[in-house]
Amino acid sequence: MQFELTKDFLEEIEKSVQLKNDDFLTSAVFGLHPADIAEILDELNNAEAKYIFERLERDKQADVLMELDEEVRDAFVATLDAKQLALQLENLDSDDAVDILGELTVQRQLEVIAEMDDEEAAELVDLLNYAEDTAGGLMQTEYIQVKLSWQVKRCIIELRKQAEEVEKVYTIYVTDEENKLVGLLSLKSLLFAEANTRIEDIYISENVISVTTNTPDEEVARIMDKYDLVSIPVVDLQKKLVGRITIDDIVDVIREEAEKDFKMASGISENVEANASIWRLSRARLPWLFIGMFGGILGAQVIGNFEIQIGQIPALAFFIPLVAAMGGNVGVQSSAVVVQSIANGTNQFSTIFSRVKKEAVLGMLNGFICAVVIFLVTWLLETPMLGITVSLALFIVIFFAAILGTLIPLVLHKYGIDPAVATGPFITTMNDVVGLFIYFTVGMLIFGI
Amino acid sequence: MQFELTKDFLEEIEKSVQLKNDDFLTSAVFGLHPADIAEILDELNNAEAKYIFERLERDKQADVLMELDEEVRDAFVATLDAKQLALQLENLDSDDAVDILGELTVQRQLEVIAEMDDEEAAELVDLLNYAEDTAGGLMQTEYIQVKLSWQVKRCIIELRKQAEEVEKVYTIYVTDEENKLVGLLSLKSLLFAEANTRIEDIYISENVISVTTNTPDEEVARIMDKYDLVSIPVVDLQKKLVGRITIDDIVDVIREEAEKDFKMASGISENVEANASIWRLSRARLPWLFIGMFGGILGAQVIGNFEIQIGQIPALAFFIPLVAAMGGNVGVQSSAVVVQSIANGTNQFSTIFSRVKKEAVLGMLNGFICAVVIFLVTWLLETPMLGITVSLALFIVIFFAAILGTLIPLVLHKYGIDPAVATGPFITTMNDVVGLFIYFTVGMLIFGI
Repeated sequence: MQFELTKDFLEEIEKSVQLKNDDFLTSAVFGLHPADIAEILDELNNAEAKYIFERLERDKQADVLMELDEEVRDAFVATLDAKQLALQLENLDSDDAVDILGELTVQRQLEVIAEMDDEEAAELVDLLNYAEDTAGGLMQTEYIQVKLSWQVKRCIIELRKQAEEVEKVYTIYVTDEENKLVGLLSLKSLLFAEANTRIEDIYISENVISVTTNTPDEEVARIMDKYDLVSIPVVDLQKKLVGRITIDDIVDVIREEAEKDFKMASGISENVEANASIWRLSRARLPWLFIGMFGGILGAQVIGNFEIQIGQIPALAFFIPLVAAMGGNVGVQSSAVVVQSIANGTNQFSTIFSRVKKEAVLGMLNGFICAVVIFLVTWLLETPMLGITVSLALFIVIFFAAILGTLIPLVLHKYGIDPAVATGPFITTMNDVVGLFIYFTVGMLIFGI
Repeated sequence: MQFELTKDFLEEIEKSVQLKNDDFLTSAVFGLHPADIAEILDELNNAEAKYIFERLERDKQADVLMELDEEVRDAFVATLDAKQLALQLENLDSDDAVDILGELTVQRQLEVIAEMDDEEAAELVDLLNYAEDTAGGLMQTEYIQVKLSWQVKRCIIELRKQAEEVEKVYTIYVTDEENKLVGLLSLKSLLFAEANTRIEDIYISENVISVTTNTPDEEVARIMDKYDLVSIPVVDLQKKLVGRITIDDIVDVIREEAEKDFKMASGISENVEANASIWRLSRARLPWLFIGMFGGILGAQVIGNFEIQIGQIPALAFFIPLVAAMGGNVGVQSSAVVVQSIANGTNQFSTIFSRVKKEAVLGMLNGFICAVVIFLVTWLLETPMLGITVSLALFIVIFFAAILGTLIPLVLHKYGIDPAVATGPFITTMNDVVGLFIYFTVGMLIFGI
């Protein structure tokens, strides 16, 4: 029942394109859901994809275009001339059209806009002004709007006109004579109302949630998620209704946000796909590796100060990786918890102090458990003196790493910096260096060297 | 316009509760959106929260209950007796009610169910049978259903009955006489149709997407995301319609999935909130720390084999943290990219071989750049011989770490294991040990010791 793209099916499609076997394509491909067709085109080369795309119905072409992988779509759009592209954009929702338009050079934007219907072109030009990561940049201008003073019968007539353009209708927006948003109307209530009922008597005016064009996209996501909305009206600074944002666009924001934290924690800059070029991939990763190298060099300096001690007791060097790794791991754990609870807005009023206190207690507990284990192991493998050194150092390192791991993202957040930069390589590196210093200092004191 | 919970407002609420100042609470709190009230209750203590909760309208109570933080809600539910809880559950959507019911002991479940209306109780008992992480466990039994053979006027009469129970109507499901799902009907088309139009003539039968009760929740999320759906019908194995899943529940699945990867990469077991008890937090983190310790002990064994060499050239020890950290960082980067592209289903047909080849080239490139930098630094700070040793070892370590970091999650995925376990502490630890072995072997060969 569900469509699943198999390797065999893909090969059959490729063969049919090469042989120009349109009969097979018509029966097996053209009738599929646009998202499924896009999944197929993502796997084909540009020429094959274009062959299929050109044979789709006009309406379906636009839908398929929006479902393509971004890189595939960009390559595809580049092969269309201004007139062809203008036609495609006219068939898209305005938020999707402006996404594609925004990727083009200014010169090409002008060419494409010149080929478009004047009214639609004006709308897109307006939308282009909003920053991509704001409500204005996410919104579409297709929505259903009725006036407070209307009766149900007039609504239904107007709706019929508007609904042709609006693909998915979730909520009807109610505005006053000045076009200011005053409330909502559910399709359900309209369906059950008498023809001469006044909108005033059936609309919802309480707790109407909207965002303004300059609301950041992450804030829009937070609001839609909090209030379980599938669409949200967007108003300008005068409270006039100018657009709506639907949940499918917000799901992308939510996922990107979550993935950003994951990438940061893994030491990869944002916005690089696995199929990007080697050079782009290299550039995305090198900064984090340089942080690691810088930390490694600092670590070498720290250890360098203890050269004589290592010469006397080489066994001290054995546990360098353990101490460094544990400091890094504990720091990342603590910072990840803080980053996540900041992102989720949980316990927003617990103070920095109470957080740090909790992590400190946790650090002591985990530090103690780890210290006991490592003491027994080191005693067994080496000497009790080394056991005391390593376990005492480990306890202190874990304790400090937990505190630093908590404090740094909290402080960054307080000063408006994305705390996610503190997880991953940054905090690992810092805790490595601090950990080494603690370890050798403890070693020096205990061995008296 | 937007509600924002400030510290001052919260203190005012706390004071009003203590003074039993219901006037203030009525004007400032009780009229808020359920999600906002829940946000307030999350910050209060149990007794204060209960004071406010008990004074809310019955309908609002249920909505507020569902919006509470899970831990707060559990504590809250524990204070209700079976009869009170049964009343709350009857006001909830079935998917939410079963979530709360599922958290209780079997004894308490029986008590609560005994207090409920028979029909609703039977529905919940059915729903309890589905695994939480399947479509059956996510679905609600409230949906709008019409028969293929009906006319529009009959639909509207039936809808009026059904719609009372269904809070949000997105799509109407069309079934045949055997209750099998045959298509969809948009509210829009119903609104514009004549009273005696037959459903057969206006329903959508093409590309109707549904899931079965045993579809895993992640798969449901993937499908709803791919096809941009706000709700999806759930059918049983005989294709009979049994429920629907709405996007708000799926947003949670998507976020949890993304957060799970982040937590794994940061070395934290799933499902532990920042405000959990110290013991639970400790237990969630210790396994990863033990992996790190085990790696550190292995690392100590590796270095231990080179005790004599370190005694001769203690400077070799200086760069242990650098080599270990870089292996870990590169491995995590490579594995994170693989984990993400598996999760997003991109390039599903590129072979393991081509992936590994790309990461190997990337590893060589980044390894070469890092090696040149570290050679210059080490030469400056120490000796050219050490410079050659560290830079050559670093190049090899980065190269191997990139390959291992790519290969391990791909292989895990092939054998049906969640590749996310391979990121974070696991891969860091492994690359630490391998890296140390490479480093000292290179050092031995170059210094001829």
